[in-house]
Amino acid sequence: MDISTVWEDLAWQQGGKIVYLILDGVGGLSDLDKGGTELQVAQTPNLDQLAKESSCGLLEIVGPGITPGSGPGHLSLFGYDPLKYNVGRGVLSALGIEFDLKENDIAARVNFATIDKQGNVSDRRAGRIATEVNRRLCEKIRDKVSLDFEGDYFFETVSEHRAVFVLRGQGLGGNLPDTDPQTTGVPAKDPTPESEDSKKTAELVRSFIDQVQQVLADEDQATGILMRGFERYQPLPAIRDRFKLDGVCVADYPMYRGVSRLIGMDVVPRPGGMKQRFQALQEVYGEKYNFYFLHVKHSDSKGEDSNFEGKVKVIEEVDQLLPLVTELNPDVLVVSADHSTPAVMGQHSWHPVPVMIHSKYAKVDDVATFDEYACGRGMLGLRPGVQLIGLALAHAGRLRKYGA
Amino acid sequence: MDISTVWEDLAWQQGGKIVYLILDGVGGLSDLDKGGTELQVAQTPNLDQLAKESSCGLLEIVGPGITPGSGPGHLSLFGYDPLKYNVGRGVLSALGIEFDLKENDIAARVNFATIDKQGNVSDRRAGRIATEVNRRLCEKIRDKVSLDFEGDYFFETVSEHRAVFVLRGQGLGGNLPDTDPQTTGVPAKDPTPESEDSKKTAELVRSFIDQVQQVLADEDQATGILMRGFERYQPLPAIRDRFKLDGVCVADYPMYRGVSRLIGMDVVPRPGGMKQRFQALQEVYGEKYNFYFLHVKHSDSKGEDSNFEGKVKVIEEVDQLLPLVTELNPDVLVVSADHSTPAVMGQHSWHPVPVMIHSKYAKVDDVATFDEYACGRGMLGLRPGVQLIGLALAHAGRLRKYGA
Repeated sequence: MDISTVWEDLAWQQGGKIVYLILDGVGGLSDLDKGGTELQVAQTPNLDQLAKESSCGLLEIVGPGITPGSGPGHLSLFGYDPLKYNVGRGVLSALGIEFDLKENDIAARVNFATIDKQGNVSDRRAGRIATEVNRRLCEKIRDKVSLDFEGDYFFETVSEHRAVFVLRGQGLGGNLPDTDPQTTGVPAKDPTPESEDSKKTAELVRSFIDQVQQVLADEDQATGILMRGFERYQPLPAIRDRFKLDGVCVADYPMYRGVSRLIGMDVVPRPGGMKQRFQALQEVYGEKYNFYFLHVKHSDSKGEDSNFEGKVKVIEEVDQLLPLVTELNPDVLVVSADHSTPAVMGQHSWHPVPVMIHSKYAKVDDVATFDEYACGRGMLGLRPGVQLIGLALAHAGRLRKYGA
Repeated sequence: MDISTVWEDLAWQQGGKIVYLILDGVGGLSDLDKGGTELQVAQTPNLDQLAKESSCGLLEIVGPGITPGSGPGHLSLFGYDPLKYNVGRGVLSALGIEFDLKENDIAARVNFATIDKQGNVSDRRAGRIATEVNRRLCEKIRDKVSLDFEGDYFFETVSEHRAVFVLRGQGLGGNLPDTDPQTTGVPAKDPTPESEDSKKTAELVRSFIDQVQQVLADEDQATGILMRGFERYQPLPAIRDRFKLDGVCVADYPMYRGVSRLIGMDVVPRPGGMKQRFQALQEVYGEKYNFYFLHVKHSDSKGEDSNFEGKVKVIEEVDQLLPLVTELNPDVLVVSADHSTPAVMGQHSWHPVPVMIHSKYAKVDDVATFDEYACGRGMLGLRPGVQLIGLALAHAGRLRKYGA
């Protein structure tokens, strides 16, 4: 039994407001030279004070040993089990540039690549061309390539060698294999349809790829494209319908804005900076919404750059801004992360992330600092990430009693 | 959703080496006269030092309250949920004597029993005859009993009153009930087939049992046989195919060698002793394998003998040999057990077992000794045993990121 369906049944319109403060990738590992994890080394009087007044624990976001991407990581925090609500790379890439996907659109992730004279892939990333080059190429393609069908295609820059392809029309299936051969010295793969309803999609994709190759024939590096993660976009059930939450996202980065839209949340205009985001939360805080998602990106970016000190600084900056959240006095304030990004690894990892739930009804434990080790001894224990929304709803008084 | 299928999808060929050091039945219970559990009483400086540098926790091998047999216990550690990969007693018994089972063989566990003149079972274990007597009887049976079909049967000694029966041929099903009535004073049950494809099997089994009873008519104790756990052997998906692990087993005891073969691992020739096993691990350690399973049997045997001091000695012996493993410097070293066998109980038990994961990426906690109580406060928490392989794969860098 999927417990989230029980929360759906029990959720009601009444109850308090929930704020999620998500520090992307904030979980870390000890750097012995630095004296602990990023959270342990950072000076965080405000987060620590909050921990002293909260229930603390650890979340295993997707599952044991599973390193979450940002999409699945956030879906889990919002109560959408990523193993059930599996959103593919094509859709996430489109969401990541805030492309306005419509139901039944076919989306795919694109790499510009170098295809040699023999038709073999010689560089799967076209020498990682600059984003400006990418923009020029996309414009050239949109200008010269046309598909003969009752519909539209879209071809948009992501960054460097990455782009997104979207097909919009009637009767298009998304069951195509990747054309990316995942190796060099061989031709790109043919998008052979894997279901009857994807035949037309395959023809259009073939025609698109062929035309692109002609258009790019005079380029040095990006002489062709490889496509991955074809998927027909189906919006997820809205968080309003599932958990009676009217949610709003305060984030600067497209991926997090996109994931929020995917579950039917509103999104404020890009605040354009960390402090501006905290201020934007204050501005939007009010009667219209009962669920607020405030996203901090750079804890992840600094971790991915293996920049331990930089990540510590981001955490300390958040700590200084925390009063802008606590002074709103939300009924439930959750501080956690979508995954770990230990600076010593320089990439996302599977390690559980710390979490604290501050609420009038939280079982306050003796955890006195907000870090992985202290939270590991908290009252919430070690839990799957998807359980967080249930606890947040309960602490906000937003779940009825189960049974008589 | 079964999380192990996600590990299967994410596993790739790259990454480091994993060593499992499995101390069979090492989990224990406190003996108040002795001052703690077997692990607590044992002097284990090397295991304790390793614990100080590892992530520690507890594993509930099959499930809460479930006392695992050795087969399910090990399958769980290898990532084969025993509730899904259900290997029966017949097949485990055959594997336990390293019988070379072929796909579709029908295997059953046999007890020599005493059948009285009225045809009733008077002793279900034939007075626990000695293994040498068992060997003589098996030879006698193989010599005089023949089955009239296009195939072969095998009848092999396990130990004491226990033997294995295997039928090999075309069109044989394995759906037969046990003939063992589980009580005395009544006749053995008839192997009435439970499916159409098992009718022929039932005829052959009846003929076999009847002939055996004639052959054994002149014996004192073992005057007949009882059969249990009929099963058609289907090999499990190989650990190489599931998790991209090229595994090798270093064990002396047939059951563990058999379980390893069942999942497609290689097995080194019997080292013939504890120290020899640790040395055999050193010899086989190299480029050919990335997963090493080193098995210690006597921690279980001493527990089953209710020999607390003997179990402590085995643990101390392992501790002295541990440097032979740590000096290999594997990317991931796991020390754990397949189940508990508390000396105060003298049998397997359901109690969770301690586990530690040593790796460059392990979240080192403040657990300073390797025992059930200390590990209960470790960062890994209390988890199902089947999660171990996912964590081991992750720490070895053998799982890709999940989603974008």
